[in-house]
Amino acid sequence: MSIDTALSRLRKALGDQFMTSDAVRTLHGQNETYFPEILPDGVAFPESTDDVVKIVEICAEEGCPIVPWGTGTSLEGNALAVRGGVTLDMSKMDKVLDVHPQDLDAVVQPGVTREALNAHLRDTGLFFPVDPGANASLGGMAATRASGTTAVRYGTMRENVMALEVVLADGRVIRTGSRARKSASGYDLTKLIVGSEGTLGIITELTLRLQGQPEAISAAVCRFDGIDGAVNTVIETIQMGVPIARMEFLDKYMVKGFNIHFKTEMPETPHLFLEFHGSDAGVREQAETVGEIAASHGGRGFEWSTRPEDRKRLWDMRHNAYYAQKALRPGCQAISTDVCVPISRLAEAVRETEADLAASPLIYSLVGHVGDGNFHSAILLEAGNEAELQIAKDLTARMYERSLALGGTVTGEHGVGMGKTRFMQAEHGAGWQVMGQIKQTLDPQNILNPGKVVQVN
Amino acid sequence: MSIDTALSRLRKALGDQFMTSDAVRTLHGQNETYFPEILPDGVAFPESTDDVVKIVEICAEEGCPIVPWGTGTSLEGNALAVRGGVTLDMSKMDKVLDVHPQDLDAVVQPGVTREALNAHLRDTGLFFPVDPGANASLGGMAATRASGTTAVRYGTMRENVMALEVVLADGRVIRTGSRARKSASGYDLTKLIVGSEGTLGIITELTLRLQGQPEAISAAVCRFDGIDGAVNTVIETIQMGVPIARMEFLDKYMVKGFNIHFKTEMPETPHLFLEFHGSDAGVREQAETVGEIAASHGGRGFEWSTRPEDRKRLWDMRHNAYYAQKALRPGCQAISTDVCVPISRLAEAVRETEADLAASPLIYSLVGHVGDGNFHSAILLEAGNEAELQIAKDLTARMYERSLALGGTVTGEHGVGMGKTRFMQAEHGAGWQVMGQIKQTLDPQNILNPGKVVQVN
Repeated sequence: MSIDTALSRLRKALGDQFMTSDAVRTLHGQNETYFPEILPDGVAFPESTDDVVKIVEICAEEGCPIVPWGTGTSLEGNALAVRGGVTLDMSKMDKVLDVHPQDLDAVVQPGVTREALNAHLRDTGLFFPVDPGANASLGGMAATRASGTTAVRYGTMRENVMALEVVLADGRVIRTGSRARKSASGYDLTKLIVGSEGTLGIITELTLRLQGQPEAISAAVCRFDGIDGAVNTVIETIQMGVPIARMEFLDKYMVKGFNIHFKTEMPETPHLFLEFHGSDAGVREQAETVGEIAASHGGRGFEWSTRPEDRKRLWDMRHNAYYAQKALRPGCQAISTDVCVPISRLAEAVRETEADLAASPLIYSLVGHVGDGNFHSAILLEAGNEAELQIAKDLTARMYERSLALGGTVTGEHGVGMGKTRFMQAEHGAGWQVMGQIKQTLDPQNILNPGKVVQVN
Repeated sequence: MSIDTALSRLRKALGDQFMTSDAVRTLHGQNETYFPEILPDGVAFPESTDDVVKIVEICAEEGCPIVPWGTGTSLEGNALAVRGGVTLDMSKMDKVLDVHPQDLDAVVQPGVTREALNAHLRDTGLFFPVDPGANASLGGMAATRASGTTAVRYGTMRENVMALEVVLADGRVIRTGSRARKSASGYDLTKLIVGSEGTLGIITELTLRLQGQPEAISAAVCRFDGIDGAVNTVIETIQMGVPIARMEFLDKYMVKGFNIHFKTEMPETPHLFLEFHGSDAGVREQAETVGEIAASHGGRGFEWSTRPEDRKRLWDMRHNAYYAQKALRPGCQAISTDVCVPISRLAEAVRETEADLAASPLIYSLVGHVGDGNFHSAILLEAGNEAELQIAKDLTARMYERSLALGGTVTGEHGVGMGKTRFMQAEHGAGWQVMGQIKQTLDPQNILNPGKVVQVN
């Protein structure tokens, strides 16, 4: 019983679908943040649920770790093989299995990306709304409970995954949930798996809720002299019940990053990027309402447009925030993290975080899906500079403490991964032990993405 | 270690808060359906989380079953003490602890009823939307994942419980979730507890999402010559994305029951009862849209009104459906059950169920929250008539099989309780074993509401 035996058995069982070359392992050892390169011992490319079962059964017999991998765009090292073993690259399970336009749902394999699904849906009048920015795989998005810019209107993966097929650590295959819109039939295993980051089972099929494409979409931009005006505009918009589709905050440094990266010339002050979905009259009404709210909080230059090219320009920028942030310090590494607080505490959370960051020697920016009370910081480091890394870690730790003190969570959407496990006890107390007990029950050998989310004795 | 010892210890520990009189036990041994009277050995009335912990610790030491009890309005014997022991009547934990109008949430004790919460909220411009009909306790509604008439617009308890305090079987107290609108921080224990029917823990505090009261509300009624027209109107309305707030189907027998019970004179054909929430212009637009859809499916007499008294009359009727159904056969007992299917399969599910019921010798009626694909049958029996009971059980079993065959669930909102445990294997397969494993882990002695939802070795 060993990883080595597992590797040779997998090679025999899977042939070309299993690779141990340096190139492939290196590709799956990367992360989008400050963690070092961590290579798995091998990478398997399952093409079916049966393949996944075969792999899990071999790994279970050999006590070999299995780490599911979607597109590698997660931000907390969620898919790094920290204890070695086999990375399960799900990219070949990339079929849209079924679309039910009458029921507004789709059944997909986990390797389908959100953009691929939306391309597939283009002629149906439907779309899948969850949009974390990156063109992530839907399996990975479910595993990390992803959300993003549109969650304020359409919810996160928590609300948009209806049913799953999951391979458990012992090779059993379960189907959770159904295509019915509601059910009171037993424990909600779907919601237990969503957000479990591959530690409880491997997602091999997803049933997702779809939305009808809105009749009209408009986008707007507005700038403010300071953070407070922007944040208070957000709070009041949510409290008024405006069904806003996206509501993104950018601090002055984020805007500066965009100006450098995209060669734009936006005034370098806090901005809101907004999007409205509805009928023609509805989007006009929403934009006018928010325009008035913004004006009352000192917002300037509020402009809205229904032209697709204006909208595309805006969200292309926002989707590239990560790269634009890095433009603030060329060649740097970014520590990107997020917290989420009750919306009534958002202003103080952002203000205190901003003050703390501004007092540090490091370059940073703030950006956020503030309609949910969720915001992100990016702190820019010289790669390999341990002193700077420590300052950044201290800054983010204070962000988490501040969020918990304000009734929030240490991660709105990035997940726990490697970076936030040590804050789980502070957030969940005895609940974290319960998570560990569930993990222990369903994966007693701790072979599924070990070292993440929970602590196992 | 015995129930008897538990009772005497509880008497000593709780004083007046523990009762074993026949009257109190009998009150807690009733159910709203065909199950026989089943009396607990004693009834405890905790006033705080500490009281609950004290009770659980004693019961754990003595191996004594504990059955949480809200208002006793569940429909599958969910709160019956089938293995004796102590019923935990939560009605004295009835305080609204906090309302956060800016965040649209409220923190309540589990014995607060939905009507009491809404009375408390009256001056805030907010309301709690989940409405199962009965004035149930919010703890019980969370435990059974209740939904009801407004779920089509606002979701069920699954979507509306943000955070919980829960006492586990070993007396540990955990807090799940937070007041942040989203989180990617570990396993979703809140959603695991919601719908677990008291088998995993006892809910001692809930944080609930609230909604802003709509600017305008209107209600409408429409009748049809047959079931198909009504059901197809529902399907098309949902598919068009009309944000309808309530959409209730009533078959001709349900209407007849209303006519008897309320002395009304509605034409005894299938009806839809509808409600629209929005701006003044919005509710008008929605009503006009649905009126046109209904007309295209043979709907007649479509009338809508914004007068509160018209609306109240309609929903008073609907909320008393259970009693109106029983008026079809005075002195009878009713077996009420529900299923939920994908909306595209709703017409065939209702049609086939109707045909099956019509071919039986029993009197029945159909009613449902059809916007979700959820509908209910009530079958009326002579109390104590075993032959009729068997026919009714066979009819409902076929309803469940039909729902599963159509991709649905055996219960949209009544829960599993005593009546549906034997259908869990058919619905969930190996997933049901996983539920049992989680139960075994968190309640190894099986003292929390034993005999419900899961099977424990």
